[in-house]
Amino acid sequence: MSHTLESPLLETLRAEYVALRERGLSLDLTRGKPSAAQLDLSNALLDLDLGADHRDAAGTDLRNYGGGDGLLELRRIFAELLGIPVAQLLAGNNASLQMMHDVVVHALLHGVPGGEPWVGRDAVFLCPSPGYDRHFAITQALGIRMVSIPYLADGSLDLPSIERHLADPAVKGMWLVPQYANPTGSSVDETTARALAAMPAAADDFRIFWDNAYAVHHLTDDEPAPLDILGLAAEAGHPDRFFVFASTSKITQAGAGVAFFASSPANIDWYRHHTSVQTIGPDKLNQLRHARFFGDAEGVRAHMRAHRALLAPKFALVERILGERLTGHATWTHPTGGYFVTVYAPARTATRAVELAKSIGVAVTPAGAAYPYDDDPHDSVIRIAPSMPPEADLAQAIEALCVCVLLAEAELGA
Amino acid sequence: MSHTLESPLLETLRAEYVALRERGLSLDLTRGKPSAAQLDLSNALLDLDLGADHRDAAGTDLRNYGGGDGLLELRRIFAELLGIPVAQLLAGNNASLQMMHDVVVHALLHGVPGGEPWVGRDAVFLCPSPGYDRHFAITQALGIRMVSIPYLADGSLDLPSIERHLADPAVKGMWLVPQYANPTGSSVDETTARALAAMPAAADDFRIFWDNAYAVHHLTDDEPAPLDILGLAAEAGHPDRFFVFASTSKITQAGAGVAFFASSPANIDWYRHHTSVQTIGPDKLNQLRHARFFGDAEGVRAHMRAHRALLAPKFALVERILGERLTGHATWTHPTGGYFVTVYAPARTATRAVELAKSIGVAVTPAGAAYPYDDDPHDSVIRIAPSMPPEADLAQAIEALCVCVLLAEAELGA
Repeated sequence: MSHTLESPLLETLRAEYVALRERGLSLDLTRGKPSAAQLDLSNALLDLDLGADHRDAAGTDLRNYGGGDGLLELRRIFAELLGIPVAQLLAGNNASLQMMHDVVVHALLHGVPGGEPWVGRDAVFLCPSPGYDRHFAITQALGIRMVSIPYLADGSLDLPSIERHLADPAVKGMWLVPQYANPTGSSVDETTARALAAMPAAADDFRIFWDNAYAVHHLTDDEPAPLDILGLAAEAGHPDRFFVFASTSKITQAGAGVAFFASSPANIDWYRHHTSVQTIGPDKLNQLRHARFFGDAEGVRAHMRAHRALLAPKFALVERILGERLTGHATWTHPTGGYFVTVYAPARTATRAVELAKSIGVAVTPAGAAYPYDDDPHDSVIRIAPSMPPEADLAQAIEALCVCVLLAEAELGA
Repeated sequence: MSHTLESPLLETLRAEYVALRERGLSLDLTRGKPSAAQLDLSNALLDLDLGADHRDAAGTDLRNYGGGDGLLELRRIFAELLGIPVAQLLAGNNASLQMMHDVVVHALLHGVPGGEPWVGRDAVFLCPSPGYDRHFAITQALGIRMVSIPYLADGSLDLPSIERHLADPAVKGMWLVPQYANPTGSSVDETTARALAAMPAAADDFRIFWDNAYAVHHLTDDEPAPLDILGLAAEAGHPDRFFVFASTSKITQAGAGVAFFASSPANIDWYRHHTSVQTIGPDKLNQLRHARFFGDAEGVRAHMRAHRALLAPKFALVERILGERLTGHATWTHPTGGYFVTVYAPARTATRAVELAKSIGVAVTPAGAAYPYDDDPHDSVIRIAPSMPPEADLAQAIEALCVCVLLAEAELGA
């Protein structure tokens, strides 16, 4: 230890940090995983007896091969929830991420309807940032160049910037979580959606990957219906612009849910064609379990309120502690749905704060992860996932993280 | 109807054909689907109650995200059955076809270990034929050129031809169903496997897609263990040559089984890396259901004997009718496992025979489907899938098909 002149604040924070280290914490805020209590809400899925009745309403034996579109009864429920015609909504296996990955792959190798294959040419995706690290991992792994589009100060999309980039025919895609975005919690309003649908694009085959992962994941009494993005797109003369994704991963069992893909009729035909080469069909028994478990769209809504009852207190807890410890030092988001809180720590402190937290047993998503190429230009964003830990652990973890942010800030000024 | 001079044989067959048409049949021999009775064998999977215990032996909650390698307990069972070290065997979702497709995609976009991406260059797959139409559909859809390698008269692989083709560095892959092949029923013996493992290849990144779909699907008392192909490959100095696939689709529920991928440690790392971008993990609850249902490898073997009890009489029935009707006109395979019988009808009759059958309500896999580009050079191969129809229907369908083959032959001579 060097004995330099240190501010009393820095000394206090160091002492607090050392005390935290001595607690031997082992806490995890990294991923948006449902808690065990949330997963318990869907345990009825695990004892549903399909032995006596494993047919759909049309009489098809769901144990056998086939049925590439997915179970109609389940598609109907989610068509209502998502406001999408059932013919334009397909149900798949357990991972919407896989659908997104595979759609990019199909576009690379075959081109989307009306376009050439993207592979072998300069292809660019616009990435509103901070965003979802696994989106960026897909584009990076598949050799697509990413351009970060920072959210505006009020949390809204920078439409003028997007429009400027769309003048470049290399811009083929854009990632977007339209509701309760990962990690900012921001939602696209109808005006913005209409602008995205109408905006001219130099590339005819430009596609927006509309990942509606949190469409029904409200944290307040306000339960807005999803935007009719496919309808808006058709109205605006760009019917094929949006690829819509959703899943029950954060509704039922995170690892054993059902994913959905929706789009225009032309895009659905395209997807169906390429998927039919890849597989003989999704796991329809798991889809049947889900349809039986929910019953109808209202069943899903009621189920999500039970999730909210478990999640909202955790978000309130995070908000309270951040307010107590970081007011005047950092800002943060106030999500009304979804799975994340984003802390905007003082510039040039996020990497250090996350590292400090890791050293005392508090795992946080790596700083920068919410940006393409892990490049947070201000080294400021820290993503908090409050869902998984019990409240007592969560409180400890957030307290500790706040100390780390403050300490990183104080070190910077030292 | 034209009134030409016709042979009495042709007239007799025409009359028989007309009589069949009047029966108004609706029978399906097209796909290798398990029958309802076979699916019933696994109905205990459908009422397994995982509600109280949804953890693996290590205590991990299998409802949540993660676990990309698949459930260890289930991998252990199939590692024993397939004779593959468990560390080299991963468990996935419901479709091994999807794994094969995705492995080709990863190879196209990223290259296999030690190789460049296949995309954008002339890439060729060798296709022992007749073979599995869905294999050929994958390579064709992904822009890979296919070269048919006809099986030799005794049903074995034409190794000299394969070796000659491997002198071409464009040859990057080969499809192969090593045991009870689709559709010929032939199996690769150890000598052939050693030759395939040892054979020089101009392309260092040449891979054999070893689709062991019928590894435990015996139709007789003879239950040979799968060849240790990964061991043979390592011994021969080509440890990375084989991608091994298997699945429970024809063991439990065809549409809701578990698929497996196995290979060398280097290939497994490669697969794991690319898969981790694509998904957060497979449906581990379905894997847990399978592990509980089977108990151990012996549980799978006993279960397969119950399948055999349902399947073997159907194959015997097909054999009997073919013998009665087609002896002297056609030849056919005598499979001791798997799902198919291949009829070698007289040259230039298969298309016509299948068309004749279709017209009287008997659906058979399109002629040519067992060849790359649907090109059966002799227009001779007809694939029969006896598993799905009840025996009475099967008998009618095979009788009808035989009449169609004989009629097509007689027409040709007329």
